[in-house]
Amino acid sequence: MLIAIDAMGGDFGPRVTVPAAIRALQDFPDLSILLTGDEALIKPLLSRCHPHLLKRISVQHSVIAVAMHDNPKHVLRSQKGSSIHLAIQAVAERRAEACVSAGNTGALAVIARYLLKMYPGVSRPAICTMLPAQNGECLMLDLGANLACDAEDLYLFALMGSAMAEVMQHKQSPKVGLLNVGEEELKGTEVIQHAAAIMSQQSLVHYSGFVEGSDIFSGQVDVIVCDGISGNTALKTSEGVVRFLFQQIKQAFMQSWYSRLVSVLVRPVLKRLKRSLDPERYNGAVLLGLQGVVVKSHGAAESEGFYRAIVHAQRAVQANLCQKVGDKVRAKQ
Amino acid sequence: MLIAIDAMGGDFGPRVTVPAAIRALQDFPDLSILLTGDEALIKPLLSRCHPHLLKRISVQHSVIAVAMHDNPKHVLRSQKGSSIHLAIQAVAERRAEACVSAGNTGALAVIARYLLKMYPGVSRPAICTMLPAQNGECLMLDLGANLACDAEDLYLFALMGSAMAEVMQHKQSPKVGLLNVGEEELKGTEVIQHAAAIMSQQSLVHYSGFVEGSDIFSGQVDVIVCDGISGNTALKTSEGVVRFLFQQIKQAFMQSWYSRLVSVLVRPVLKRLKRSLDPERYNGAVLLGLQGVVVKSHGAAESEGFYRAIVHAQRAVQANLCQKVGDKVRAKQ
Repeated sequence: MLIAIDAMGGDFGPRVTVPAAIRALQDFPDLSILLTGDEALIKPLLSRCHPHLLKRISVQHSVIAVAMHDNPKHVLRSQKGSSIHLAIQAVAERRAEACVSAGNTGALAVIARYLLKMYPGVSRPAICTMLPAQNGECLMLDLGANLACDAEDLYLFALMGSAMAEVMQHKQSPKVGLLNVGEEELKGTEVIQHAAAIMSQQSLVHYSGFVEGSDIFSGQVDVIVCDGISGNTALKTSEGVVRFLFQQIKQAFMQSWYSRLVSVLVRPVLKRLKRSLDPERYNGAVLLGLQGVVVKSHGAAESEGFYRAIVHAQRAVQANLCQKVGDKVRAKQ
Repeated sequence: MLIAIDAMGGDFGPRVTVPAAIRALQDFPDLSILLTGDEALIKPLLSRCHPHLLKRISVQHSVIAVAMHDNPKHVLRSQKGSSIHLAIQAVAERRAEACVSAGNTGALAVIARYLLKMYPGVSRPAICTMLPAQNGECLMLDLGANLACDAEDLYLFALMGSAMAEVMQHKQSPKVGLLNVGEEELKGTEVIQHAAAIMSQQSLVHYSGFVEGSDIFSGQVDVIVCDGISGNTALKTSEGVVRFLFQQIKQAFMQSWYSRLVSVLVRPVLKRLKRSLDPERYNGAVLLGLQGVVVKSHGAAESEGFYRAIVHAQRAVQANLCQKVGDKVRAKQ
């Protein structure tokens, strides 16, 4: 399997993406990687790589790196040779089976939509990620690609999220919740009310009603659907809370001589806890609805996180995710 | 000062509201309380109350308790004698200076708007709460009363939130952030873009640009404004994450004989931490824009939380919050 990696994306570029790629090659003997980006920055990082791994890496040179604040449509029109563009193009031309980028999300979505095309009935990719939950995991979409959604969009997200939970997490008839400001039937906007009505009357997804932000981590449902603003807000808020809590824990253990003493003993337990909740572990959101696997890594991901995104892309290819999502969407029509 | 309390609201009704009211009377000698609700349920809970406190409690009987799923407009029309209605009416008739309820938020907002009226230029109350942040606190609004907002609404929230941060938290020129899906200038819906343009061109609030969900707890800004869906999602997500994290911490300390041993030593530190982050501590959201103080307690609040909401209402009266909010809104016109 060949995965194309936009080596320039994210806050750290090749310094993070190249070591992650090398680690993935070490761990998965059937994997090959195409790195797109500035050879002058990438090649030195490959110098320490074992020759037998080097054989499975190729580099496609590009000096155009898309910035985080670049306008996606402008990028599509005028930066055709960018590292993001080349990585997606490799998938479009079937040279690669998936692509991974930590770059500008909007540009990634716009270029992927243009080069890979959507499945009929889907207008824009939906960003879907896995979040930790009590007794398992929960998928959530959309996380920011679709800011304004109508009821049909939300139903589409439910279909695509269900397909992903089925093939990637082996859940039979995954439960889908619709994010709302309350669980009572009357709550929510017209769009949410309409989406609930649509989902209550179909049989392609196992719709289980409204959920609230607090249910994301409770394990009550397997998939949560919402518009991109709510999803993005929920995702980033939860990142913020985790960071804040660990700061508070650290401070709590510095407050007295007793707590400082205990903190030495407790360190291994907290370290394990932190590792199990580390956002890096859950890094790698899939752009669903595209006719090809595109995985978005968090821009701030370190090497561990970017490695997870590569593994995620690989698993999506193995599970034939895109095809299954396309089938589910087609069944609706 | 007399505060009217809807004794029937919330998940637990008088069992929580009455003991919280008694505690508030104990702590604040200048406080009197009017409890609205079912005498048959309230009176027995007052039996253990010291006679000198009893003198400062009155009860206004009502057998109509609004349910959480009741339609707010229906409640306004046909349940005029409900405990929520009576509590707000006491404020409207200037018998009470504030009212506190843990009941149906929608009904509270609709009745309060009808009986107390809004300040000119504000169409609906905005729900505003204080959240813990690194080095202090952050105010956030709206949290669910205004699901669809236009740019002017968001600007109004900025004005009202600023006024609250000034008088309740004594912040001079509080920094206001506009919640968005990214910090880059191009990001967001047309409404958010328009709101940013308005706020960049005025001088009544100290607008400091876009913030993301992760910034709520970072202490970067003093006030965060957003529509009710995003705000509600962020608030409930953060509650869910905190609950989830404490479950995970508990599990982490149960995993081995070593961690179980350590957990005994660490208990006092974690207990203190939990207390400092307890949502109950931050309970009590103010409905801003009304010509009267109305505080909404979390429906699931226990006695400690409801007590905090009463204290919050008292502080809002002392700070002359409503008037200050009205002045700020008027200055815009």
